[in-house]
Amino acid sequence: MANINQYIEENKQRFLDELFGLIRIPSISSEEKHKPDMVKAAEYWKEMLLKAGADKAAVMPSEGNPIVYGEKIINPSLPTVLIYGHYDVMPVDPIDLWKSKPFEPEIRDEKIYARGADDDKGQAFMHAKAFEYMVQTNTLPCNIKFMVEGEEEVGSPSLPKFCTEHKDMLKADVILVSDTSMIAPDIPSITTGLRGLAYWQVEVTGPNADLHSGLFGGAVANPINVLCKMIADMQDAKGHITIPGFYDDVLEVSDEERAKMAKAPFNEEEYKKSLDVELLWGEEGYSTRERTGIRPTFDVCGIWGGYTGEGAKTVLPSKAYAKISCRLVPHQKHLEIAELFKKHFESIAPGSVKVKVDYLHGGPSYVCPIDLPAYEAAEKAYEEIYGKMPVPVRSGGSIPIIATFEEILGIKSVLMGFGLGADAIHSPNENYPLEQFFNGIRTIPAFFKHYTNK
Amino acid sequence: MANINQYIEENKQRFLDELFGLIRIPSISSEEKHKPDMVKAAEYWKEMLLKAGADKAAVMPSEGNPIVYGEKIINPSLPTVLIYGHYDVMPVDPIDLWKSKPFEPEIRDEKIYARGADDDKGQAFMHAKAFEYMVQTNTLPCNIKFMVEGEEEVGSPSLPKFCTEHKDMLKADVILVSDTSMIAPDIPSITTGLRGLAYWQVEVTGPNADLHSGLFGGAVANPINVLCKMIADMQDAKGHITIPGFYDDVLEVSDEERAKMAKAPFNEEEYKKSLDVELLWGEEGYSTRERTGIRPTFDVCGIWGGYTGEGAKTVLPSKAYAKISCRLVPHQKHLEIAELFKKHFESIAPGSVKVKVDYLHGGPSYVCPIDLPAYEAAEKAYEEIYGKMPVPVRSGGSIPIIATFEEILGIKSVLMGFGLGADAIHSPNENYPLEQFFNGIRTIPAFFKHYTNK
Repeated sequence: MANINQYIEENKQRFLDELFGLIRIPSISSEEKHKPDMVKAAEYWKEMLLKAGADKAAVMPSEGNPIVYGEKIINPSLPTVLIYGHYDVMPVDPIDLWKSKPFEPEIRDEKIYARGADDDKGQAFMHAKAFEYMVQTNTLPCNIKFMVEGEEEVGSPSLPKFCTEHKDMLKADVILVSDTSMIAPDIPSITTGLRGLAYWQVEVTGPNADLHSGLFGGAVANPINVLCKMIADMQDAKGHITIPGFYDDVLEVSDEERAKMAKAPFNEEEYKKSLDVELLWGEEGYSTRERTGIRPTFDVCGIWGGYTGEGAKTVLPSKAYAKISCRLVPHQKHLEIAELFKKHFESIAPGSVKVKVDYLHGGPSYVCPIDLPAYEAAEKAYEEIYGKMPVPVRSGGSIPIIATFEEILGIKSVLMGFGLGADAIHSPNENYPLEQFFNGIRTIPAFFKHYTNK
Repeated sequence: MANINQYIEENKQRFLDELFGLIRIPSISSEEKHKPDMVKAAEYWKEMLLKAGADKAAVMPSEGNPIVYGEKIINPSLPTVLIYGHYDVMPVDPIDLWKSKPFEPEIRDEKIYARGADDDKGQAFMHAKAFEYMVQTNTLPCNIKFMVEGEEEVGSPSLPKFCTEHKDMLKADVILVSDTSMIAPDIPSITTGLRGLAYWQVEVTGPNADLHSGLFGGAVANPINVLCKMIADMQDAKGHITIPGFYDDVLEVSDEERAKMAKAPFNEEEYKKSLDVELLWGEEGYSTRERTGIRPTFDVCGIWGGYTGEGAKTVLPSKAYAKISCRLVPHQKHLEIAELFKKHFESIAPGSVKVKVDYLHGGPSYVCPIDLPAYEAAEKAYEEIYGKMPVPVRSGGSIPIIATFEEILGIKSVLMGFGLGADAIHSPNENYPLEQFFNGIRTIPAFFKHYTNK
């Protein structure tokens, strides 16, 4: 087997140039105006796969943004690994907090700074380059397929149907995904659990027009005051979510497993310091790691209403809005939770306002068993590159489609993530350390080797 | 005395043209970019006063926007009436709800539609034209002074100092103000009470950057959730404001006076219908009219934080903001209330966030006794034009400077308002009925006549 380190050394600048080309396409899936950029990013991926050595690659239509598919079948009797990634990214607000332009990648302190540098352009790109290396050195030990979509950040609404309609094409033995993070550069870890998600937008309407807060204030319900009260009432003083039935399907993790999890390295003081908070807050009776790993949440992701400009405007507004999300855990069902939320939110609305609840998207949670052969191959690959066995961890994040893959395609996913907690994904100044980027490209071929016992 | 109706008939179009010229200047005092428009509007007023017959008029500097002063002294031994008005207007958001452009006045259904059509360009302008009429017809029976400021909508921060420094210049027997409304075109009324105001902006900071709501959600306090809870806790289930000491100075109105007030015509069903609300809501134990007339309020005028764009973005934001106002009643002191609020808001903030409270502006409440000679002259003037004695009413609105005038200049104000509840002041599609506009110009000279017993 030719040396991967040498291959990276010789092609370093080209790898970065190619990744930067992809990053420069502002493929924000939640903003309508970026529709043409979605197609551009998909076409870019198709060309990359063909150049890397795919037998075929295509930009395929879906009900939403196009999906890139590519494959190299070396022998139908050998196992097949399906690589999943996404070319879409999050919005860039608040734009003024970025130190460099989000779609003009810049290397500072050995990190790539840009929207998508990690999530998921940078991480998915590693697979294209690992694939290229294996083809170039004739070391690809099995069949490989790629599926790169453009709606992950909005909940992958078109992917389930696409999977259902292309079950044969997507047939594989395991799905490999790099869209998560490790504990630290010197503490490799593999995500074995993902939280599910449910996301709503709510609208509270008081009077039919903005009113003078002096002439009407005190006599007419203010929709912002009401929305605040309704949101406050969704959690009790112990941090429990008050939606009836919300916890019915929550898998209570055993004391034994909780004890094991508690052994993972975690410095709460440093965690607080890095966030600049005096106190942490969450559900009573659970540790910080448990609150993000095995418990569901209730977070307002956005709120707006009334006058939000400069200075003071006295107004009793007509409407108030919020975007609300819940992270879900096994075995909560997101569509059931969506209904429970809606029912409860409507039931606690006072008669002085009207409320509207829109379910925007969601997905189930996922657990990967640590005795899965592909998981064990991933463990060995990390050990080879990082010199340490990776720790299995339950992440608080969500990749709803992972659970859907299992449901529709019947295939388990292994989440070989190379991001870091400090990468600021979804935030201003998203970044991806070059070391992690190149280590990812090193680790992936090692996975293929161990998975096929070559 | 020459006929006012005839004078209006002959000059109608010119009056409207001149008013429209003033309205076209977008003098929004809360937005920094409109600074040059403030000067333009002040200059426009100065020219109007000179043309109308003022001996002198000037645009005078203040610590903020300039103040227009004008006077005509016919005999120092005669009484002096000081007219107060403002040339600044409210912002125009939400702009997309306007049927015509806010600064391009349009007459539809016998109403002038524009920002400032009523509040206060339209109403203050009536005084300029009534003055012009009295000068032209040689019927001005006493001395007259004008003071037109440009910061009323942001709480008149510079006017107290201006009054203190120009006490002699502003000497007068009564202040006449048209910046309020009447019950209905066929039910004239005069505002005898105004609520005070206190206005804050609050900022709640959680983590030092926007976070991934999956990776951190559940373990780190979300500043929007926290802000909502804090706002919800500022009022109890009975609509009482929970700030300690908030009600200490509230004047409890006697049962007798409440019984009198209850006789003012008010149709609650029509009120609800016009606002399109099923139920009204306010402080327990008080009627709708009492809630706006004699009781203080707690209204969130604006709220924002996190992702407020299109679609779904999962984020645990770093900051959340709100603009909060309280209407105050006699004898609450706005600066004391400002401190009580700040102290309480800071005290209920959990240790997981930092809060910042900025007091933006405020002012005391005001009561005009109905046996004041100038009030009685106003009553007679309305009766002459409208054919009915006006009803004295306590308004829920605030003109903080009115109480300040009494404090600094020692002069009572009479609030001869000609607006209507449907004029949508501070809202999209602000308007002012032509009938009220011209009736105002008719009523003002009648006031001067009765006030001087001519």
